[in-house]
Amino acid sequence: MNLSDLGEFGLIARLRARWPQMPAEVVVGPGDDTAAINAAPGGLLLFTVDAMVEDVHFRRRWMPPRDLGWKAMAQNISDIAAMGGHPTHALVCLSLPGELDVEFVDALYDGLDAAAAEHGASVVGGDIVGSTGGVTVSVSLLGEVEQGMLMRRSGASPGDVLMVTGEVGDAAAGLRLLEAGRSPAAGEQRAVERHLRPAPRMDEARILARSGHVTAAIDVSDGLAGDAAHIAQESKVGVRLYAERVPVGAACRSVAERLRLDPLDLALRGGEDYELLVAVRPDAAERLAELLHHETGTELTAVGEAVEAARGLTLVRADGTETPLGAAFEHFGPAS
Amino acid sequence: MNLSDLGEFGLIARLRARWPQMPAEVVVGPGDDTAAINAAPGGLLLFTVDAMVEDVHFRRRWMPPRDLGWKAMAQNISDIAAMGGHPTHALVCLSLPGELDVEFVDALYDGLDAAAAEHGASVVGGDIVGSTGGVTVSVSLLGEVEQGMLMRRSGASPGDVLMVTGEVGDAAAGLRLLEAGRSPAAGEQRAVERHLRPAPRMDEARILARSGHVTAAIDVSDGLAGDAAHIAQESKVGVRLYAERVPVGAACRSVAERLRLDPLDLALRGGEDYELLVAVRPDAAERLAELLHHETGTELTAVGEAVEAARGLTLVRADGTETPLGAAFEHFGPAS
Repeated sequence: MNLSDLGEFGLIARLRARWPQMPAEVVVGPGDDTAAINAAPGGLLLFTVDAMVEDVHFRRRWMPPRDLGWKAMAQNISDIAAMGGHPTHALVCLSLPGELDVEFVDALYDGLDAAAAEHGASVVGGDIVGSTGGVTVSVSLLGEVEQGMLMRRSGASPGDVLMVTGEVGDAAAGLRLLEAGRSPAAGEQRAVERHLRPAPRMDEARILARSGHVTAAIDVSDGLAGDAAHIAQESKVGVRLYAERVPVGAACRSVAERLRLDPLDLALRGGEDYELLVAVRPDAAERLAELLHHETGTELTAVGEAVEAARGLTLVRADGTETPLGAAFEHFGPAS
Repeated sequence: MNLSDLGEFGLIARLRARWPQMPAEVVVGPGDDTAAINAAPGGLLLFTVDAMVEDVHFRRRWMPPRDLGWKAMAQNISDIAAMGGHPTHALVCLSLPGELDVEFVDALYDGLDAAAAEHGASVVGGDIVGSTGGVTVSVSLLGEVEQGMLMRRSGASPGDVLMVTGEVGDAAAGLRLLEAGRSPAAGEQRAVERHLRPAPRMDEARILARSGHVTAAIDVSDGLAGDAAHIAQESKVGVRLYAERVPVGAACRSVAERLRLDPLDLALRGGEDYELLVAVRPDAAERLAELLHHETGTELTAVGEAVEAARGLTLVRADGTETPLGAAFEHFGPAS
């Protein structure tokens, strides 16, 4: 069987079975975006890696190198944030074609450094290798999380409320504009900006982690549906998402209307919004949303709930119809 | 200027200038293969990354996937060993074309796991992304080194003896056989094996680090000349290598004769032997070689010396002629 048939998540499931048991100090291991290791004084060491591949995750014609660097770093910072931690040190692994201008590399590092510095992290080294194809940027990031502050994907129970920060769908809408070579209309620039220069929800994550009310957390990088499915799988629960409650961004709605796309589909399957999706004890949901809004100005919206695993993953529409959440974004192919 | 003109080491020098100062806890930062961070209880955290790119570092027609996994892990372990540490936890970042068979990925992980397990490390996660080109395997590895055991590139002084473990040139000779599609003759199999399945010098590195006599260390991944140049640059010394003392492997000599290549050139510029090149205080060199041989059976051969920086980098031949060491292996192009 080849990888396109198996799919990214099928492959990950297959690989996880390789490591039925981790060493005792590994608190979170394979299957999560980020590993957590009991190796830091007073807390856990977090360790994550993410790659951006030309013509899979971006195209050079619409991704300026500074933004490429920013995003490659920011998506790793978002992974660390989603576990309640803060980033510390990064290695940058670049695969670069020889004909590339050195100014491209300078701008790429400007973006990498800017995103790291904004969140208190430093680039401490890396590896630069040739490429016979396009540009690949892979960032390995270390972080720390205080004892007791770790948020995982695996703690949600039936009855917990699923809540998402901010708005979703904008980044996917921005990608559609960029791919179509269309200029953003009034109010749509935010969609392009969110795709090119995502902002990790570091402050929000810290407040959520400190609240003690979050039972599971993930950053939205595979789309709301895909990341809800990750929480469901790791927590061994089912999930119901309520279509009309999903906070779809205004820019996403505008782009969707112009390009004749379904804005909800962009929000559910588009990914890369880097919002936080959390499961919250039901009696704390409202208070937590108020706290987060008061402290950061960011909305925290109830979009669904965890249910018994046997009930599966469903999308509930306003008219009461229920449909399976379906497959999330899979990575084995060119950018769509 | 494009990267092919600037060269890998030119690019690295340019990038280093970006970070004139590192945070206080970063003991070794950009410019080394491995970062060392004052963040582990009782020692330093080591953090390194290395990528293997199809048609740059290997070809699928001659690199079995199990060996690819082994080598991708082993070269990182070698980086950790060269600093006197031991590896602990790895993340694996794969960029894979969709048409790849899943059995390829299984075998790749067999090799990654085997190399990690042999040295007490574990794969704790990673990232898998698509590729529109070939296979890229990038391993990020954490390690630890005890307080006072850190070996660096930067401590050599004029007068120190440069010594190398084992034999060099075999891995480069093996690559030439593989690239030429030639079967190894009797005695040459070792060259192919050393290219495909390098063995990090973990035991040797620990003994060298504990001896207290090593002033600088690096693993031989860019060729003896290239890695001597790295020590020279970081230690701000010059280097003299004595051609007739370089312990060129027997397999390398045999391949070189058959393919009409210069065995010394393979040893100096071939790289990927993953031997250790160390600078040693002159009064301790002989004793250290005896100790290492007694403990591990591995030879430690004096191949040159550190000299004043102004004297540059030279290769001294048996007839007394001196030539500049010249450029080491550079990575911006297809495999040669």
